Amino acid sequence: MLIHELTDKECFDALARFGFGRLGCARDNQPYVVPIYFTYHEGHLYTFSTAGQKIEWMRTNPRVCVEVDENTSPVQWLSVVVFGHYEELPDTPEYKSERNLAYEMLQQRVTWWEPATYVAFHHHRGADPLTSVFYRIHIDRVSGHHAVPGPVESATLPAPERATKSEGRLLSLLRRARII
Amino acid sequence: MLIHELTDKECFDALARFGFGRLGCARDNQPYVVPIYFTYHEGHLYTFSTAGQKIEWMRTNPRVCVEVDENTSPVQWLSVVVFGHYEELPDTPEYKSERNLAYEMLQQRVTWWEPATYVAFHHHRGADPLTSVFYRIHIDRVSGHHAVPGPVESATLPAPERATKSEGRLLSLLRRARII
Repeated sequence: MLIHELTDKECFDALARFGFGRLGCARDNQPYVVPIYFTYHEGHLYTFSTAGQKIEWMRTNPRVCVEVDENTSPVQWLSVVVFGHYEELPDTPEYKSERNLAYEMLQQRVTWWEPATYVAFHHHRGADPLTSVFYRIHIDRVSGHHAVPGPVESATLPAPERATKSEGRLLSLLRRARII
Repeated sequence: MLIHELTDKECFDALARFGFGRLGCARDNQPYVVPIYFTYHEGHLYTFSTAGQKIEWMRTNPRVCVEVDENTSPVQWLSVVVFGHYEELPDTPEYKSERNLAYEMLQQRVTWWEPATYVAFHHHRGADPLTSVFYRIHIDRVSGHHAVPGPVESATLPAPERATKSEGRLLSLLRRARII
């Protein structure tokens, strides 16, 4: 397996493609991790949430970490880690353009399979704006790694790992979901 | 969609079943999130890692968070959040039984599709013990939520969401992987 570091541009491309990861925030040095849907735009991750623990914590301490990953096979995976900080996009005139941008981009991203966020988005957007908090993560620093099979592994891998990228990804997903 | 809280036992069952999630640690209130493979046993998550940033941080501040989740459909998902603390299992006589336990359990869990961890496990276990750090997370507090379709959603969902659990999970995985 050969592991190489991703450039900043490759990291941003991966963030734009995935749109899903885990957000870490912290209070009194106690970390807290939750799943997060987002959309990437020019050095920021835009998203929203219903008010709750993570919003409270990020208001207290804006330092956050967002992690995304993709596992295609034992020797083919990609991971990106963002260190950044939280900025709320309140419903006030000075944040109107950022909120509109976030709203439009998030609306494009939402697809039928997305879980609670989808429901919250459609349920809350016209109902009770007080419970929906729009915010963005400023990306201060990003790093990423990509693993690909080395020459020996390519030659010795059994058939499933020699499948096409899509096939390999499907097989790994099916196995991970314990469907096969 | 109906959301209900999981009991502690349901959370532990989910942790035992998944064996994969994201670990959050923190230093100076800066969170850091990484993927993690683990095995659950009697209130602890056992795992190992090559030495690196997260180990350094957890040695400094043992407070951690582990998050696991599963999205089957927009209205069917499960998530578990663990607050706990780090305990290293050094290669010393007093930790021999815990290390053996961790080793045996992790060996049972490793399957072909697991990424870097798999390679690291097999590569390092007999080679250079200094670079492999066994540790466990003591679970101090756990919480979890499970969402299932409500009566209205069950009646109005289009065909894919009315598929069996396995079919629904497969469809969502295929779409998420952008295979279909």
